[in-house]
Amino acid sequence: MNVLVTLNANYIHPLKVMLTSLFVNNPDETFQIYLMHSSLTEEEINDIRTKVEENGSKLHNITVGEDCFSNAPTLMHYTKEMYYRLLAFKVLPKEIDRILYIDPDILVLNPVRKLYETDLSGYYFAAANHNIISYTEINKIRLGTYDIEAYYNSGVLLMNLEEQRKHIDENEIYNFLVKNKTKLILPDQDIMNALFSKKIKSLDEKLYNYDARRYRYYKIATNGECDMHFVIYNTVMLHFCGKRKPWKDTYSGRFHALYKHYEKLAIS
Amino acid sequence: MNVLVTLNANYIHPLKVMLTSLFVNNPDETFQIYLMHSSLTEEEINDIRTKVEENGSKLHNITVGEDCFSNAPTLMHYTKEMYYRLLAFKVLPKEIDRILYIDPDILVLNPVRKLYETDLSGYYFAAANHNIISYTEINKIRLGTYDIEAYYNSGVLLMNLEEQRKHIDENEIYNFLVKNKTKLILPDQDIMNALFSKKIKSLDEKLYNYDARRYRYYKIATNGECDMHFVIYNTVMLHFCGKRKPWKDTYSGRFHALYKHYEKLAIS
Repeated sequence: MNVLVTLNANYIHPLKVMLTSLFVNNPDETFQIYLMHSSLTEEEINDIRTKVEENGSKLHNITVGEDCFSNAPTLMHYTKEMYYRLLAFKVLPKEIDRILYIDPDILVLNPVRKLYETDLSGYYFAAANHNIISYTEINKIRLGTYDIEAYYNSGVLLMNLEEQRKHIDENEIYNFLVKNKTKLILPDQDIMNALFSKKIKSLDEKLYNYDARRYRYYKIATNGECDMHFVIYNTVMLHFCGKRKPWKDTYSGRFHALYKHYEKLAIS
Repeated sequence: MNVLVTLNANYIHPLKVMLTSLFVNNPDETFQIYLMHSSLTEEEINDIRTKVEENGSKLHNITVGEDCFSNAPTLMHYTKEMYYRLLAFKVLPKEIDRILYIDPDILVLNPVRKLYETDLSGYYFAAANHNIISYTEINKIRLGTYDIEAYYNSGVLLMNLEEQRKHIDENEIYNFLVKNKTKLILPDQDIMNALFSKKIKSLDEKLYNYDARRYRYYKIATNGECDMHFVIYNTVMLHFCGKRKPWKDTYSGRFHALYKHYEKLAIS
């Protein structure tokens, strides 16, 4: 299976934790891990490579150089990193037709095979909509000139590279950015939703992008079905959304002990 | 290493979770697991045996028959099971001189070797005192005719079997029980404290008998040092004390996700 990760040096530690959780909960799989970055050192890359190879998988380094996405506007605080998820299809090997992007602030708790094999015919991505009505509505208003039905989270993205290569025009992305630069909060996620909302296949967030802050919400919304037992036995992607992160000393939350457990596995 | 577990059929599930956590966090150790019970079926024993042997360890079955502890008074709701921890030395093989008793409502998070090798010279047991002042004081008053300095929790007990065989008289235990039968709340723990308090070596509860309900207390009492990071990286015995148990649907607590994680490992 192909997995895409993109990061800067600040996220190496959580990336290793995420990869460890991916490996231990998918012991029979071999992964081709594509690491897309612009600033990691040789030493940092080798550190990640060791972790990947220990687990029988393979690391493919993709250094994004100055010449890449050279038409891209880098306005205000937006850096080139924000295009990685949207334009990965341009730098990934031509022979791979799908890849699973996973944010580094995620724990993979269960096998990813079923997600990976999701039928993507006619779609560019599969992603989960974090179904908070007010949140979705605000984003629709904010990006109002674009016809979006749901606002998808870009932390877990199954990508149909074949379809993307055929239909996505990078200039459309750059133009959108220039036009909406004052409105964007999470630029890549906003762009994905505004431009491609109808080309995103909806995934069940409880399985594939569970927001770790919202345990009570999921439990109540499912009449108790989505309880802790459900999460540990079924949820594939547990996403530590938001500013408070479980690798920080000040974190506190229902999945804190579990995160530290995987962190310990990752560094041992 | 020798490990003692005692249980009835209701605790088979948590026992398997506890053993799984012991095995995965002590991958280089081989354990001799002594299972002391009076009512398990052949099938139940074999179920536990499979789990133990999968991990390269060995199960020793000790069925406690009618003739065993035959002088023991079984008053009111007290059953013979309550003597198992106190009188294990009488039924365990003569050639073993120490054993580590672990309650089934415990997760073993880190290596037990250092605990196991604690110097026990002159002591019958090593155990941790759950240092809640009011609790200790109440127990001292309750068991007031006996000279106890601390009230130890009997969920984790390192036993000096050699010393116990020499000095513990089972009749002393039976007499104590008859005399104090109206005062005992947790009979075996009460007896251990009342009769042997001075022969119990004190262990650090944060490492060897961490009460899972008291995260905030430990953190505050140590000026923040005993935080989640400390627990996951250092605590050996995480004890789900009290009536609310993490294998029940209604449970909720800071270590719930971690417990379910080990439970999933245990049944897979």
